[in-house]
Amino acid sequence: MKQIYEQFKKEINAYKYALWLMGWDDETEAPKASKAYRTEQLEVLYTLVYKLEMDEKRLAAIDQLAKENLTGPFKREIELEKKGIDQLRKIPQAEYIAYQVLISKSSQIWAEAKKNSDFEAFLPTLEEIIVFQKKLIKYLETDTLKGYDVLLDMYEENMGIKEYDEFFKVLNEKLVPFVLKTAKVKQKFPSVLLKGSFNIEKQKQFNHRLADILSYDLKKGVIKESVHPFTSGVVSVDTRVTTAYREDLIDAAIFSTIHEMGHGIYEQQVNPEFDGSILSGGVSMGIHESQSRLFENMIGRSKAFWDTHYPALQQIFAKELKKVTAEQFHLYVNRVKRDFIRIEADELTYSLHIMIRYEIEKALFNGKLQPKDLPKTWNRLYKKYLGLTVKNDAFGVLQDIHWSIGSFGYFPTYALGSAYAAQIYDVMNQEIDVEQCIKNNDICKINRWLKEHIHQYGKLKTPKEIILNATNKPFDPNYYVDYLVKKYTTIFKAYEVN
Amino acid sequence: MKQIYEQFKKEINAYKYALWLMGWDDETEAPKASKAYRTEQLEVLYTLVYKLEMDEKRLAAIDQLAKENLTGPFKREIELEKKGIDQLRKIPQAEYIAYQVLISKSSQIWAEAKKNSDFEAFLPTLEEIIVFQKKLIKYLETDTLKGYDVLLDMYEENMGIKEYDEFFKVLNEKLVPFVLKTAKVKQKFPSVLLKGSFNIEKQKQFNHRLADILSYDLKKGVIKESVHPFTSGVVSVDTRVTTAYREDLIDAAIFSTIHEMGHGIYEQQVNPEFDGSILSGGVSMGIHESQSRLFENMIGRSKAFWDTHYPALQQIFAKELKKVTAEQFHLYVNRVKRDFIRIEADELTYSLHIMIRYEIEKALFNGKLQPKDLPKTWNRLYKKYLGLTVKNDAFGVLQDIHWSIGSFGYFPTYALGSAYAAQIYDVMNQEIDVEQCIKNNDICKINRWLKEHIHQYGKLKTPKEIILNATNKPFDPNYYVDYLVKKYTTIFKAYEVN
Repeated sequence: MKQIYEQFKKEINAYKYALWLMGWDDETEAPKASKAYRTEQLEVLYTLVYKLEMDEKRLAAIDQLAKENLTGPFKREIELEKKGIDQLRKIPQAEYIAYQVLISKSSQIWAEAKKNSDFEAFLPTLEEIIVFQKKLIKYLETDTLKGYDVLLDMYEENMGIKEYDEFFKVLNEKLVPFVLKTAKVKQKFPSVLLKGSFNIEKQKQFNHRLADILSYDLKKGVIKESVHPFTSGVVSVDTRVTTAYREDLIDAAIFSTIHEMGHGIYEQQVNPEFDGSILSGGVSMGIHESQSRLFENMIGRSKAFWDTHYPALQQIFAKELKKVTAEQFHLYVNRVKRDFIRIEADELTYSLHIMIRYEIEKALFNGKLQPKDLPKTWNRLYKKYLGLTVKNDAFGVLQDIHWSIGSFGYFPTYALGSAYAAQIYDVMNQEIDVEQCIKNNDICKINRWLKEHIHQYGKLKTPKEIILNATNKPFDPNYYVDYLVKKYTTIFKAYEVN
Repeated sequence: MKQIYEQFKKEINAYKYALWLMGWDDETEAPKASKAYRTEQLEVLYTLVYKLEMDEKRLAAIDQLAKENLTGPFKREIELEKKGIDQLRKIPQAEYIAYQVLISKSSQIWAEAKKNSDFEAFLPTLEEIIVFQKKLIKYLETDTLKGYDVLLDMYEENMGIKEYDEFFKVLNEKLVPFVLKTAKVKQKFPSVLLKGSFNIEKQKQFNHRLADILSYDLKKGVIKESVHPFTSGVVSVDTRVTTAYREDLIDAAIFSTIHEMGHGIYEQQVNPEFDGSILSGGVSMGIHESQSRLFENMIGRSKAFWDTHYPALQQIFAKELKKVTAEQFHLYVNRVKRDFIRIEADELTYSLHIMIRYEIEKALFNGKLQPKDLPKTWNRLYKKYLGLTVKNDAFGVLQDIHWSIGSFGYFPTYALGSAYAAQIYDVMNQEIDVEQCIKNNDICKINRWLKEHIHQYGKLKTPKEIILNATNKPFDPNYYVDYLVKKYTTIFKAYEVN
């Protein structure tokens, strides 16, 4: 049985590698005019690999193996495979294919609607997607997993409404008042940073140092550009990242690079023995995001980081940054602005954008909210949690791609990741002196700690086990709120002194 | 039958697209540490597509279609497919696979031998390759195609020993004496060009203009970097090129870019209806090389080109090129040096490097030369045709990769391409004013002529038909020699005046 399973795996891996590379190429450099031809080839390969994955011989082998007394990583591998095929088997194939066709067109309809800030143009498509998602829930429900929990569990094993409600309750009670209070803080920045124009070639000079600073391994990775930055890994030895430059913002590319390298370092440090099996790569969206946020915010936005690396940046932008001090720059990269757009949000307010989306998704799937009422609810919640009046749907309910591709249950993992990061950071800091590592240009020591406690496992442990294993405690959102309140209290005090 | 054939084609195309992209990625950006994993996936996909291509149902469909009364492009498509499978069927599968294994390792053995200038270390492998090539000839021989002609025909349909002998005879009689005479010409160049250091970022600024200048279509292509420049096209809408920068040579990347764009423009202009069939892409190595050489030498190294575009280059390298005139630069990019290395050879002496290789291959396959005697023969011929004493095998017989991957019969097409180019250029110049097009920055007019007379056909016509169709005459090597002698007589006179 194992032999049959492994033979299928070998072929499936080859298809998946090809599909992965075609996706990466499509997002980064493929010529525009070749899109239609490439899509045809993708469809052929997807069909072939789907046939292989659902081949009766393979399914039987997995069913059989799941009954055997397995041990070690192979036991977990088969468990995950079994969970995957059991889910797929529950969805009628015709419906699944019809949904794939819908999804392949819906993001373009969304993009067009967003461009025109026209929610009504997107609504019928969105309704269709939600209808399928509700059917999907029915198909996949188990004794222990019901309703919206089915979707949540897809992105983060063992995280459901109960857990997220507790999490967001803490944010609501402790973070929202703090955020609303910060409206009064007067943040002042050197005008060159606000109205600056920063040559992209020069930005690249600094950005190319980041791989070295963070020990992102270029023998196992690539840094490239794309419209939206992302990380794309297929095995530990091939995990690539992209960044995006903005001439008007000196720090946009820096933090998108650090963020993606956080994702990249995670996958590069997974046990290479898992390469080519379902155990490779990150375990969940939440744990993945915890690593990118830890690098982006706790390392990249720290005072120690800019005390150490600002001189190099200042040297590159000698004219522009002549009068800007490291301290001013550190305050600038931690600027807070309650604003409309999630992906441009700062560290402090980011999770409130997520809280709003979670509340909406929950209401959509328990029937308390109809899709047509989304804009109204959206705008009400932005007023309540962020004190903002949304002007139009492009800056409101239409801003994110996720719902247009059926990714319901995904958003909460973004906030969860930041919260995981705070808890992990707290423990790590008790074991190694993180600030000193940053100052000594010795971040690889941090990476080693993360590898030992988190990265190496890939999907061998569940997210819950990972957190327990790394921090000796179950997940506790108070770490996150405490971290934010402490950090930003210090930051805001600095304005008073300066 | 057609339906069966088309169904296979659809699947085969998807595999080929994936394999093509994996090859492109491997040569340009894939991380080094992922090589082994990628090779495994490549092997799996190669095996799968080989099975499909040799599937009995597909072979039977092609056999049947070949007997039918087909017309138009599909007739030629089936002829080419039939020729391909007939050849493959003649080679015993076990031998074919053993040879693939040999070839997959041999280029590394060659690279190591070249590094150490140690021909003996490469000899046993080379002998094995030649043994297979001789067997291959036996398997593929027909009534009309015998011996070395079998190999030559693989790279250029209808070109055999008889045709190449005539070609090289003209070169030998008219070009060799001219080249040997040029030893006396005193070429003088501004020292900044000879000992220069040219910032690569600045070089890129100029190189990125070339797509626009030559009308290489970036909606259907990509420009990237690789160790050795190359062009890689899969369909007319996806034909990518690479270039390679050298800090010490201001013109290395410029001409490698123009050369590869010549290849790229050819494939981009093939009838898009051929995309996904064997008819897409260039018809032969010779015709392909004619297009790259036409762009590189006849357009890129023309006086009109540098009168038009030198000011932009001079502005980028304001300090370095301050005192260098357009005329001096034009002479510099046409400098002649009889030297050891083919890929660094100038336009005038290039084909003599090829003549030497052709003479050697011919002797290898008619039994007059044993592989062990290759260095001796090589060195003798370099003395005879180029007046050079080869110092060691790294600069001699080991310099090229071709023989190490079994590419016998390939070299002659390089010289043939340059000769085709001269004949095509001559006719084109009678129909449109090429110099004026270059001066008016209107090279797309040249492209349109080439599209109409050559490019659009892809593999629909044979190379012989292409030449006859475009120039109204069969191939005649005198165009080439006359072009070279006339061009370089003018160039060398310019040194006397200046």
